[in-house]
Amino acid sequence: MTPPLSPDARRALLTRAAAIADEAGRIAARAFRTGLDVEAKADASPVTMADRETERALRAALRDALPEAGLLGEEYGAADLDRPLVWVVDPIDGTKSFISGMPLFGTLVGLLEHGTPVAGVIHMPALGETFAGGAGLGAWLNDRPVSCRPTRALAEAFVCCNDLGGLIRAEPEAARRLLDAPRILRPTGDCYPYGQLAAGWVDAVVDFGLQPYDYLPVVGVVEGAGGVITDWRGHPLTRQSDGRVVAAATPDLHAALLRVLEAA
Amino acid sequence: MTPPLSPDARRALLTRAAAIADEAGRIAARAFRTGLDVEAKADASPVTMADRETERALRAALRDALPEAGLLGEEYGAADLDRPLVWVVDPIDGTKSFISGMPLFGTLVGLLEHGTPVAGVIHMPALGETFAGGAGLGAWLNDRPVSCRPTRALAEAFVCCNDLGGLIRAEPEAARRLLDAPRILRPTGDCYPYGQLAAGWVDAVVDFGLQPYDYLPVVGVVEGAGGVITDWRGHPLTRQSDGRVVAAATPDLHAALLRVLEAA
Repeated sequence: MTPPLSPDARRALLTRAAAIADEAGRIAARAFRTGLDVEAKADASPVTMADRETERALRAALRDALPEAGLLGEEYGAADLDRPLVWVVDPIDGTKSFISGMPLFGTLVGLLEHGTPVAGVIHMPALGETFAGGAGLGAWLNDRPVSCRPTRALAEAFVCCNDLGGLIRAEPEAARRLLDAPRILRPTGDCYPYGQLAAGWVDAVVDFGLQPYDYLPVVGVVEGAGGVITDWRGHPLTRQSDGRVVAAATPDLHAALLRVLEAA
Repeated sequence: MTPPLSPDARRALLTRAAAIADEAGRIAARAFRTGLDVEAKADASPVTMADRETERALRAALRDALPEAGLLGEEYGAADLDRPLVWVVDPIDGTKSFISGMPLFGTLVGLLEHGTPVAGVIHMPALGETFAGGAGLGAWLNDRPVSCRPTRALAEAFVCCNDLGGLIRAEPEAARRLLDAPRILRPTGDCYPYGQLAAGWVDAVVDFGLQPYDYLPVVGVVEGAGGVITDWRGHPLTRQSDGRVVAAATPDLHAALLRVLEAA
């Protein structure tokens, strides 16, 4: 196995990835609120020309930054996933926000090292906010260091969930426990709650039905801010995970959420 | 009955109300992401000092602008509601967004004339966006005129709903029909979708469980943009409405949504 990247090398790639997301995000920002045609994809999620142009820009710049890395993206699929380093990109996470004039869509870039997400970027083109981080590297909102807040008790926690209606249908028991447990349970969606968690504004995120390009780029942001992020069984997130994600500000809060979600 | 305001007088009051919302919204914007203490109100909704300070600023400025008007606000209640003109204010609509670092909270101001909402303002302090409008006056986003888009068929519509999970529990039949009918049904919340509707970015909003200070200020924005907004039975919105709101870009789309919601 190729030796792992040094922390300095990881940090340099994280900085480069944030700049690349920022640059590619301008394509998305320029197309925002311009009444683009929306097509239905095979999975019925909407896609626009802006998704594809933004992803092409991301892929070209990331390949330029690290020619030996593989690439996994939402719109143009996978290339060279057997390489030790792999970029994961989602050009416009939150296409429904994007097509409805809501500024909560993000441009996501993550770096996998032997399958493990080690650095990630959540760039919000319409808000001018970039969250970046990696385990052992720290986390930033734009140039300001951020960290998760120290909430340990679920009864005191502000928890975001991406699809409460869907959860009630798919996992009624877990949904019932989740509805009762936190101080506030907020229906949300897409990438922004992971930035809110890293910045210390919310305490946890419980999502399901995510794709690898949705969840792999946010791992570095959460872990760099001191948070814990796994699947619902407490396993590390990989490309093979089932799309169920639980992220929390502290290990205690994460453990409490795993108990709420167990058997789901 | 006092004669109604002339269109010029209404327009002048709308302009003044937008400036007042903008000014008071600075208090909310300054307090945003500062880790304010959050209290539970009697109805369990969270409230912060920022809500109260913003409302005090709104009330003082609106009283100054129109001394003879009554006032209805979220935090400090009602005064002189028997007057021909009444201001309705919500200092921070979307307190859960506000306390979680999400920039989707709004400062709302509406004007009632003999109980009818004739002008309204949706100011988004953290986004720097102000939607303003009134029936017969037009509608604006900041200084740019906006209007609803011409969507007539529900099957082609992007529809926002503030509480799908709650709707499924409260009105399962209407929820089932609503889930199937539009092109996209998006869980949303608070005031921003009414601005999105007025700007032509979404086609309809179906909300329930709203308070008068939530829905009365948005009426002018939607009607000024050419949209239709009523309760779920098609009646005009007043202080006595039941908090169920349906707003649509066109009369045809509004009628189609009333049919989906009928008997709920």
